[in-house]
Amino acid sequence: MIKQKITISSNLFPSPVVLIGVKSETKPNFFLVADIMLSQYKPLLVLFSCYKKHYSTPILIENKCFSLNIPSEDMVAKADYCGIGSGKNTDKSNVFSVFYGENIKAPLIEEAPINAVCELRKTVDMNGTHYIFIAEITEMYAEDEILTKGRPDYQKVKPYIYTKDNTYRQMGSIIGKAYKEGKVYK
Amino acid sequence: MIKQKITISSNLFPSPVVLIGVKSETKPNFFLVADIMLSQYKPLLVLFSCYKKHYSTPILIENKCFSLNIPSEDMVAKADYCGIGSGKNTDKSNVFSVFYGENIKAPLIEEAPINAVCELRKTVDMNGTHYIFIAEITEMYAEDEILTKGRPDYQKVKPYIYTKDNTYRQMGSIIGKAYKEGKVYK
Repeated sequence: MIKQKITISSNLFPSPVVLIGVKSETKPNFFLVADIMLSQYKPLLVLFSCYKKHYSTPILIENKCFSLNIPSEDMVAKADYCGIGSGKNTDKSNVFSVFYGENIKAPLIEEAPINAVCELRKTVDMNGTHYIFIAEITEMYAEDEILTKGRPDYQKVKPYIYTKDNTYRQMGSIIGKAYKEGKVYK
Repeated sequence: MIKQKITISSNLFPSPVVLIGVKSETKPNFFLVADIMLSQYKPLLVLFSCYKKHYSTPILIENKCFSLNIPSEDMVAKADYCGIGSGKNTDKSNVFSVFYGENIKAPLIEEAPINAVCELRKTVDMNGTHYIFIAEITEMYAEDEILTKGRPDYQKVKPYIYTKDNTYRQMGSIIGKAYKEGKVYK
């Protein structure tokens, strides 16, 4: 196999797609994030990177709180809409029906099968264009029909993924189980 | 729609699967990471979270360098193997054929269709069990046959995803294009 050095590209791995929500004094706003990850489990921390100049950034910092909403496949157009226009000149407060949990600073999207309230724990200033936000998931909400034994079931939620060629894709077929497939090499 | 508050769960969104490589004085080691993201594009930064106690963690910090290797679907068993055993008591240096680019501290996996050399730019100490590593991608390598117009082509690379129910899944069918599907709401 011969490898060549190529121009550095962001076409690397698929990413999850989520909708982040914040609430200003007057209204909720939602934006699409396609690079987000869990950074640890105890406590459950979620991490994403955000342009400093985005409309929602100072609101999130002020509130120390935001919502994480998992869109299902059938929400792809509305979710994409939230990734096109900025809250600076687009009112996205009526795109979805909104409800609230205990922390009323996190606007939760009714149409999304899973919602989480996230409380900001750490902000990393990248000394350039971005902040990295690290937050603890403190509340979670779901429709009963997407649960299996009390936990969200991916087959029912139908979250989707994003690749950096501007493409949204479904989750595909199961090809293996973690901590099992590799045992053949033990 | 009626939502209920549920027990906090990591069953949220699908994650990418990559193999991270480091090189000690004596040999390379590889471990599986299923939560990783690009945190910005200029320069291209990659970010992941790592247990402080992992075998590779002090090596990565000492070298200020690691490799990022994208496994394809057909590597699922070998990649999973790298997620089972620790480098402390498992020699994973011969699981793959290894080559090197310009920075010889990043062991690159020949079998993986895309490889990147990552140079550590920032370490965030989470004051607990984890560090967060933020690194710049400084070199990238690929087989000619997975490129389309010089860029990696997801359809040819066939990266796969991980869901927190311990399941590996293929990328599925295309359901839309970013910055396009949402225009119907404009």
